[in-house]
Amino acid sequence: MQELIRQEIIPRLGGKSLIELADSARLDLPHTTLAFTTDSFVVWPLFFPGGDIGRLAVCGTVNDLAARGAKPLALSLALIVEEGLPMNTLRRILKSVSDAACQAQVEVVTGDTKVVERGSANQLFITTSGVGIMPSNLDFTPGRIEPGDVLIINGAIGDHGIAVMSVREGISFASSVKSDVAPLAQMVQKVIKGCGPAVKCMKDPTRGGLAANLNEMAQNVGFVLEEEKIPIRPEVQGACDLLGLDALTVANEGKMLFLVCPDSASKTLDILRDHPLGAEAAVIGRADDKKRLVRLKTALGGERIIDTPYGRELPRIC
Amino acid sequence: MQELIRQEIIPRLGGKSLIELADSARLDLPHTTLAFTTDSFVVWPLFFPGGDIGRLAVCGTVNDLAARGAKPLALSLALIVEEGLPMNTLRRILKSVSDAACQAQVEVVTGDTKVVERGSANQLFITTSGVGIMPSNLDFTPGRIEPGDVLIINGAIGDHGIAVMSVREGISFASSVKSDVAPLAQMVQKVIKGCGPAVKCMKDPTRGGLAANLNEMAQNVGFVLEEEKIPIRPEVQGACDLLGLDALTVANEGKMLFLVCPDSASKTLDILRDHPLGAEAAVIGRADDKKRLVRLKTALGGERIIDTPYGRELPRIC
Repeated sequence: MQELIRQEIIPRLGGKSLIELADSARLDLPHTTLAFTTDSFVVWPLFFPGGDIGRLAVCGTVNDLAARGAKPLALSLALIVEEGLPMNTLRRILKSVSDAACQAQVEVVTGDTKVVERGSANQLFITTSGVGIMPSNLDFTPGRIEPGDVLIINGAIGDHGIAVMSVREGISFASSVKSDVAPLAQMVQKVIKGCGPAVKCMKDPTRGGLAANLNEMAQNVGFVLEEEKIPIRPEVQGACDLLGLDALTVANEGKMLFLVCPDSASKTLDILRDHPLGAEAAVIGRADDKKRLVRLKTALGGERIIDTPYGRELPRIC
Repeated sequence: MQELIRQEIIPRLGGKSLIELADSARLDLPHTTLAFTTDSFVVWPLFFPGGDIGRLAVCGTVNDLAARGAKPLALSLALIVEEGLPMNTLRRILKSVSDAACQAQVEVVTGDTKVVERGSANQLFITTSGVGIMPSNLDFTPGRIEPGDVLIINGAIGDHGIAVMSVREGISFASSVKSDVAPLAQMVQKVIKGCGPAVKCMKDPTRGGLAANLNEMAQNVGFVLEEEKIPIRPEVQGACDLLGLDALTVANEGKMLFLVCPDSASKTLDILRDHPLGAEAAVIGRADDKKRLVRLKTALGGERIIDTPYGRELPRIC
């Protein structure tokens, strides 16, 4: 898919903003800077432990805005409904959209609904777009990261991917794992307010997990992760072992990676831990000068290279 | 579908903007007024005379912005691709997206691509969202329409719907009909620039055609249409007769309805006819005080009520 996007889609559409491949595009207006983002959600099954496609769609879009430092202003919601979708299923999902938007303090202001014949879609696809207000004088792009910057995450990794896979693959012992799907914009705004430009870059590690995100951010720097410091639930690790997955490549939907100046690391941690969505925040590594290389210091003292995951785990995880 | 939207979706999501059911939502910022819109495109087949799903997605979103008087600022593009879609098909469609965006003078700034397994989608669905800059002191909502206002359209009706149906239903004698799919924002901007607040309301009559749109606009007024003045190609009329369709209910993708003060009607016509997409512009009726009633004066001197079309023609026309 990355190949499809980089080789086929972007060259045909051109646009400077698109080439940046950021979570959101930046739009500079005379008095305002906007962030603008879109995502289609095709997760299967529609309901999974801890969430559903509706909550996922709202949170995914809010978090893409949050990663640009933007305060969400408005969301759009486009539904592609397969004929025969039970009305109660749709109602539950819409309730979930509404609850998540309320939690994220953002409103769904515009929408569209298309019904397609049975067999032409898989029950329901949702596409959300979001507009947010960006701080005009601050940007959080990989180019700002310097060697020495500290890598912080707001909690345990892999919960979303394993929660979805546990229902899909019927892994019963992982059934206690709930998706971390949550809207992070308010938590992120607190970090930005507290630490300002000491926050260098942010990314929400969704598809492809930490491995994909860190490789994307490793442009002028490299990263070294410390395995022992990465928060991960034992059930998630167990499911990964069973499925032959590296937890670093598993999707998250309520996590944000922060690269911050060393001086501001403890303040960032304090702000995060003070927020319900950041209670398990931890320093998990740092940037160094080994450009384009992401490495993991293992618990046993070894080091291994973390590549961009090939094929990016299972399809339809989000 | 209207029932689904009004009874199930809107009450669950609440939002004031959503309730307006306008083509685009209005977002008031301190120094700027934005229009924000989204649409999913599920047209089948992907290619039809005069266009394809890519051109349709760009034009549909641009026209929803245009109907709010907005100048398009940026588009997003979210693709749901069925595994097995020929790469050349995707390439042609992306080229078409790019060409239409170029014609509309707007850039695709952000996007997303999801691939789903064979059988989980019908080749390709596209969801586009758009952000535009609205004139802060002007709005073009149905509430502004007054009895006496003149109803103008920029050309012949029904081309899009019949073009798609002709390939789908194999109506050979209608195969010369091409979709009117075109981006109307620049033409609309010229009308606004020339006529200002004398333009009361605009709508692009897509699904459900003129019948659906006029019924939506008939809030404080009614409308009377003059059958003889409505531009329609003989092939389109012929196909409608064959299929038992009322051309007033057939989808357009390059048309805009303008309600303007009587004093400004001829100026509006002049501006439209001066633009390639408005060469066949015509006055087709007027608003009167018979609230909520849309009527057609037939060529034979009779009058019939035009209701909101039930079921809104064939599915997947856009």
